[in-house]
Amino acid sequence: MRVLITGGNGFLGLRLAQTLATRGLLRGRSGSLEEIDQLVLVDSEPAVEAVKGATYLTGDLTDPGFLDAAVGPGADSVFHLAAVVSAAAEADFDLGMRVNFDATRALIERLRAGGRTSRLIFPSSLAVFGAELPAVVTRATAALPLSSYGTQKAMAELLINDASRRGFIDSRVVRLPTIVVRPGKPNKAASSFASSILREPLSGRGAVCPVARDTALWIASPRAAVAGLIHPHESAVEQWGHSRIANLPGITVTVEEMLQALARAGGDPNLVRFERDPAIEQIVCTWPSRFDTTREQHMGFVADRGIDEIVQAYVEDYPAGRPAGAGSP
Amino acid sequence: MRVLITGGNGFLGLRLAQTLATRGLLRGRSGSLEEIDQLVLVDSEPAVEAVKGATYLTGDLTDPGFLDAAVGPGADSVFHLAAVVSAAAEADFDLGMRVNFDATRALIERLRAGGRTSRLIFPSSLAVFGAELPAVVTRATAALPLSSYGTQKAMAELLINDASRRGFIDSRVVRLPTIVVRPGKPNKAASSFASSILREPLSGRGAVCPVARDTALWIASPRAAVAGLIHPHESAVEQWGHSRIANLPGITVTVEEMLQALARAGGDPNLVRFERDPAIEQIVCTWPSRFDTTREQHMGFVADRGIDEIVQAYVEDYPAGRPAGAGSP
Repeated sequence: MRVLITGGNGFLGLRLAQTLATRGLLRGRSGSLEEIDQLVLVDSEPAVEAVKGATYLTGDLTDPGFLDAAVGPGADSVFHLAAVVSAAAEADFDLGMRVNFDATRALIERLRAGGRTSRLIFPSSLAVFGAELPAVVTRATAALPLSSYGTQKAMAELLINDASRRGFIDSRVVRLPTIVVRPGKPNKAASSFASSILREPLSGRGAVCPVARDTALWIASPRAAVAGLIHPHESAVEQWGHSRIANLPGITVTVEEMLQALARAGGDPNLVRFERDPAIEQIVCTWPSRFDTTREQHMGFVADRGIDEIVQAYVEDYPAGRPAGAGSP
Repeated sequence: MRVLITGGNGFLGLRLAQTLATRGLLRGRSGSLEEIDQLVLVDSEPAVEAVKGATYLTGDLTDPGFLDAAVGPGADSVFHLAAVVSAAAEADFDLGMRVNFDATRALIERLRAGGRTSRLIFPSSLAVFGAELPAVVTRATAALPLSSYGTQKAMAELLINDASRRGFIDSRVVRLPTIVVRPGKPNKAASSFASSILREPLSGRGAVCPVARDTALWIASPRAAVAGLIHPHESAVEQWGHSRIANLPGITVTVEEMLQALARAGGDPNLVRFERDPAIEQIVCTWPSRFDTTREQHMGFVADRGIDEIVQAYVEDYPAGRPAGAGSP
């Protein structure tokens, strides 16, 4: 089985690669567990950390020649994680369109031309939601994003869904909550602070929170996110119905509740300084914080149990000093 | 005021052009009625009927050179009606992408480069709806199309919405019901039959209905559709909230109710032969037939009063022998 991970150098891509390398097996279109004999990590940045048995390809997926070389003889499975993150896509519309939409479209076309009906797993985002929000979001809620990142993800979702319906590819789209706790350094995701306000104080460093204490967020742990990409790959298409798009189960927490969990884990909440940033608020505060994912849970997706478990998992997974992958959505 | 109508040769484009030419005035970004001193009709087919004072440009909008020439010195307003219709987009995915999505994107980019924040009116379609449908559709319902046409329209909607949010253009998107009664000949729209089963018997000719008698449709008259494109152009942006997308009010009727109205108007329902066509049913029967458009009615959109009024309007608007524009969605 030949498996590609784009954005394989991002923190999520790297964790996914490590998990797949350790498992060595993946259930795909045949319905049976198959051996992953080729694991290819594609990223615009050189590898930050070696993954056993993986091949690295460094280049720009918006370059047709590189995309062609990266897909190579085709792929049974592609986890397409490469993306320009939310605040960056807001700052540069054209860059976001090129990476988040055009490269995704080109990838679909390349896989379609290969004729293997490759399985494509695409992490979308809660950022596809914005306008006309109900109190609780479900799969039946309109995706009316209020950011260019959300727009580009929503457009890619639609194209991927149609390409699956037509049999060009066999895809699953999973809309990720804000991922907390991201290791490493803050990145250009508008929600980067949601990790910083836990991660930095846990290492005795200060952090800035650009939104109010009572801001509610819909979050999931890196463990849940990685599981939430592998599970749909292994799920039968019959579970999905007419839409290949699911909302990954998460938990709703306020900034205040996160700081309380920080204190329980031995961190000092006073290291977090509140400094409102309208540009960040304008993006993050349009994202929904309450979802009903009953349907997704019936499909086998599993939510984190609470903020304390999420903080504990971070402490276990990222002991001080361990490299952690470059910034990713 | 320079006004462009793409697809200006289609039946809806032609009616819109005639209406605008007769009015001579349009309320746009200034908030006041302005004189339309340039009315430019753009179409891939040569003009079928002259519109007083209008200029015609014939060419392919997917050709960047033609698009550039068509927009010319810029436009205050563009009614972007050019499209590949539903069954044609289903038959040729790449053509649909090129015309329905890429040309729309190129148009937005051309208007953005012009720097005039042109008003863009985009007819989308009930075909954006399909999977995960509630009993009654509203603006908050997820657009999860089950056709490539619906997908391309939904992607264009998202892009247009974001381009408006960013100030590249100032747009309004109106999702049209199935338009009944279309004049002229049947076209490649999957819903073409909905007009044929009224239009043909009213002229003493036979027609084929490819769906069951109890199939419910969400329809609007050509009069309502034209009004539903002009009204949003003239509406203030404050009425729209964070989404520039509205569902045009329509009425719900079954095929059987349409045939009863045909009989009341003097047509013979026995001229309609039922011959199920799975390819048509697969598209049309995924479209919703019940909407709640209370919000849109508060925004000033007006629905038809019933199927008898719609049939009567056709008889008035299209006396036998009058040319009626080429096929359009």
